[in-house]
Amino acid sequence: MPRILESIVTTCSADGRVHLAPMGVRHVDGHVLLMPFRPSATLDNILASGKAVLNLTDDVRVFAGCVTGRRDWPTLALADGSHRLAGCLAHVPLGLDRQEDDELRPVLWMAPGEQVIHGAFAGFNRAQAAVIEGAVLVSRLGMLPEEKVDRELAYLQIAIEKTAGAAEDEAWRWLRQAVAEHRAGRRQGAA
Amino acid sequence: MPRILESIVTTCSADGRVHLAPMGVRHVDGHVLLMPFRPSATLDNILASGKAVLNLTDDVRVFAGCVTGRRDWPTLALADGSHRLAGCLAHVPLGLDRQEDDELRPVLWMAPGEQVIHGAFAGFNRAQAAVIEGAVLVSRLGMLPEEKVDRELAYLQIAIEKTAGAAEDEAWRWLRQAVAEHRAGRRQGAA
Repeated sequence: MPRILESIVTTCSADGRVHLAPMGVRHVDGHVLLMPFRPSATLDNILASGKAVLNLTDDVRVFAGCVTGRRDWPTLALADGSHRLAGCLAHVPLGLDRQEDDELRPVLWMAPGEQVIHGAFAGFNRAQAAVIEGAVLVSRLGMLPEEKVDRELAYLQIAIEKTAGAAEDEAWRWLRQAVAEHRAGRRQGAA
Repeated sequence: MPRILESIVTTCSADGRVHLAPMGVRHVDGHVLLMPFRPSATLDNILASGKAVLNLTDDVRVFAGCVTGRRDWPTLALADGSHRLAGCLAHVPLGLDRQEDDELRPVLWMAPGEQVIHGAFAGFNRAQAAVIEGAVLVSRLGMLPEEKVDRELAYLQIAIEKTAGAAEDEAWRWLRQAVAEHRAGRRQGAA
């Protein structure tokens, strides 16, 4: 299987609102495959505009932010009216080529335009990877047993403590806070 | 603390042999801080030549390869006689500025030259992160309880199964094989 790459997909609504979504994408046969959930703003925007932008960023605050209600990240307008994430290492304009419909997750075959590089890969950071894993956990809090979440967060925290910089620390705090708030809300709901 | 970035450091011996080593580096006060263990070829080569190259690669086979006896990765000569990793997304020439001596791990303050970008960051891949974690485990097999290694490998394997491409699958096989060989050797030694 082609590897899954965690990216930020930016799309625009008909009235010009920019939407950011973290998304795992695959490169297949010269296409970028997006599988947005139905319903979602990303799916609506791509079907309406035929366009999206793939943003490759190593700023894990954007991933942790998007799953904890912080979706307002700076973007820059491109010549065609699309928007890219301002703080990305590279972006690729995407045009909708065809779609395989599906009740839950349609597969959008996007033709990539020319990739533009804005900065260099700085190397693997174990804390960044921990934030990505933590963001996956937080996006599934309603489906996962607390004990599993706690065990995995404790494991991931080791890499945070050993290798994080300020951005990773901040992203990790948002994730921890979201877990605490989810549980407080659940207990309140049960009381 | 500045984040730790997992990189491949290339150095040359006086007789022109290129040496590759995976290394976690920090950027501090405009310098790249290397902390090679004593004794090591990397330390010897930098103290003798005053030079190294920082290679930023997302090919995790190089990391898994270096901890499983596969150190022979293609390199390219630079104008100054240094070598960079052929398959890297960026490289930075480094010159030794000063060192803080230490019995175990001297700190080498390296002044960075101009960074050269060879390719774009493709996005986070959870399987790549799992290989990096697995490589750390394999490099410490002699110090870790088997049960801890098994538990962490089982956790990491989930990301491999869900998100790996061919390179990550191959790197993961090398790591699994190294664990099996280490244990076979230990049992043989004890018998």
